[in-house]
Amino acid sequence: MKQLINVPESVVADALRGMAAAHPELTVDVENRVIVRRDAPVLDKVGLISGGGSGHEPLHGGFVGPGMLDAACPGEVFTSPVPDQMARAAAAVDSGRGVLFIVKNYTGDALNFEMAAELAEDEGVQVGKVLVQDDVAVTDSLYTAGRRGTGGTLFVEKLAGAAAEEGAPLERVEAIARRVSESCRSFGVALSACTTPAKGGPTFDLPPGELELGIGIHGEPGRERRAMMTSGEIADFTVDALLADLHPDGPVLALVNGMGGTPLLELYGFNAEVHRVLSERGVPVARTLVGNYVTSLDMAGCSVTLCQVDEELLRLWDAPVRTAALRWGS
Amino acid sequence: MKQLINVPESVVADALRGMAAAHPELTVDVENRVIVRRDAPVLDKVGLISGGGSGHEPLHGGFVGPGMLDAACPGEVFTSPVPDQMARAAAAVDSGRGVLFIVKNYTGDALNFEMAAELAEDEGVQVGKVLVQDDVAVTDSLYTAGRRGTGGTLFVEKLAGAAAEEGAPLERVEAIARRVSESCRSFGVALSACTTPAKGGPTFDLPPGELELGIGIHGEPGRERRAMMTSGEIADFTVDALLADLHPDGPVLALVNGMGGTPLLELYGFNAEVHRVLSERGVPVARTLVGNYVTSLDMAGCSVTLCQVDEELLRLWDAPVRTAALRWGS
Repeated sequence: MKQLINVPESVVADALRGMAAAHPELTVDVENRVIVRRDAPVLDKVGLISGGGSGHEPLHGGFVGPGMLDAACPGEVFTSPVPDQMARAAAAVDSGRGVLFIVKNYTGDALNFEMAAELAEDEGVQVGKVLVQDDVAVTDSLYTAGRRGTGGTLFVEKLAGAAAEEGAPLERVEAIARRVSESCRSFGVALSACTTPAKGGPTFDLPPGELELGIGIHGEPGRERRAMMTSGEIADFTVDALLADLHPDGPVLALVNGMGGTPLLELYGFNAEVHRVLSERGVPVARTLVGNYVTSLDMAGCSVTLCQVDEELLRLWDAPVRTAALRWGS
Repeated sequence: MKQLINVPESVVADALRGMAAAHPELTVDVENRVIVRRDAPVLDKVGLISGGGSGHEPLHGGFVGPGMLDAACPGEVFTSPVPDQMARAAAAVDSGRGVLFIVKNYTGDALNFEMAAELAEDEGVQVGKVLVQDDVAVTDSLYTAGRRGTGGTLFVEKLAGAAAEEGAPLERVEAIARRVSESCRSFGVALSACTTPAKGGPTFDLPPGELELGIGIHGEPGRERRAMMTSGEIADFTVDALLADLHPDGPVLALVNGMGGTPLLELYGFNAEVHRVLSERGVPVARTLVGNYVTSLDMAGCSVTLCQVDEELLRLWDAPVRTAALRWGS
């Protein structure tokens, strides 16, 4: 796949310049790679900070704004950001009420956010931390011990972000983030490999006529490869993999997510199948989000995330949000 | 490219079922292929109706809602909807103030919307019509006489939609739509061909190492093929092609649009280059939208649309909109 880039080395900096040009409501520090909502620090508000390797856009930079993140720290493509980025972000967004780090469970991210927390605490910033490890496909993987963090991150950022926007203290925002993290499960499917700028070609080999069930968002191996399946068969497999692990006794939020290269027309068709399976399994869906939110560059494929919610979490989901990629309410 | 579908024949119906499941704020008539905002007809409001072949999502169904379209009529992939769809939509959204048809300039669409207008007028509905023909790449093409309608459609739908939402009469909404249509220019670039469900493979042949400048949103031939260019070179060529035709004496709205298969990371980087060129040419950019809005299935590539605006049009752009794919304001 050909790429719309200048040189591989400048891809992240170029994208940050482009974000700055498109979004005057954000402060984008291109050199230090920190994206901050322009009105930060917000008086008396807990600051939410996330970050991770680039290549998953709009995650996380597209989720910075009122009702969601205060700052995002993008690393190189598929590479953890460095501790200095998160420490800078903490200094930029802390209003004195502390900050919450939202960390996808990859070894590099976990380590670098841990070091950043120490740096920030040395500067007198109170730091909470939540690890997102929602991907049920495999335990332990190329880049992590335990489960990988994927689509559930969107729910943690949105729901904890809404709580922070309402003025909840750090302890409470962190508790909500943890509860959401524990209530999310994700499963991804690749129809094609993705193309990193550095490599300029497919990062792994997925033969014509095969798909990979349980793929990671960096193309890490999943559970198994099979002959190409229909949208309905993929929905059956995916939802059953989720429900084998999450046993919701109430409504769920559903994220029917594209990996980047699959057309929205196909994603909506897949959403119909996901809803069919959930209905057959007796799981009520309170809200559905369909689109490319937690991507893997140009990978064709999809993932489904389910997040069990109670009334409070549903109210936080419906609360206003104003970011580049998610916005609703007043 | 592998596809996330059941069978090619059901792709559009499946997607409509998926839209219905995700968007309770829409009424989706899957059988007759009409997507309508749930509160239609809106009292004393002119109804805006668009439509066209599927495969360009979120256009048009993703633009149905308060502040934009009242209804959208999706045809088969890359195939015009039939007159009966638009006539049904007109009946569903007309409040007695009339409806406006927004038509991309392709022979089939122009003909079918014309027939639909006759059907609707026979039922006593007053019908206005505006043709969008913003693509400066070529005159006459595979599917049309004159210029093709592409990204400018988003601006026509948003700005005329805002005017209609404010209660403007049909004559005025149509005049604004026409003025916007005349103020828009687009130019697209393909890095890869797209994959239609029916064909299941690339719809045209674009060799490795080459791109096509001036591509149409159905893969229609553009101006020329060249050896692969950098993001900056593509921005130079694209913006200059636009400015050779549009000579703005004031600010523009910029749509930096993905064709579907190009990652958002790359699109933002491209946006930085588009802004660089516009700045070098002395064109101020009032607002910028970056993302996949007028797509060509899984085609990799991009397009740029510029829309010259005065104070009134800028105010209409900033007015609230609440659709699946575009939303802001209260």
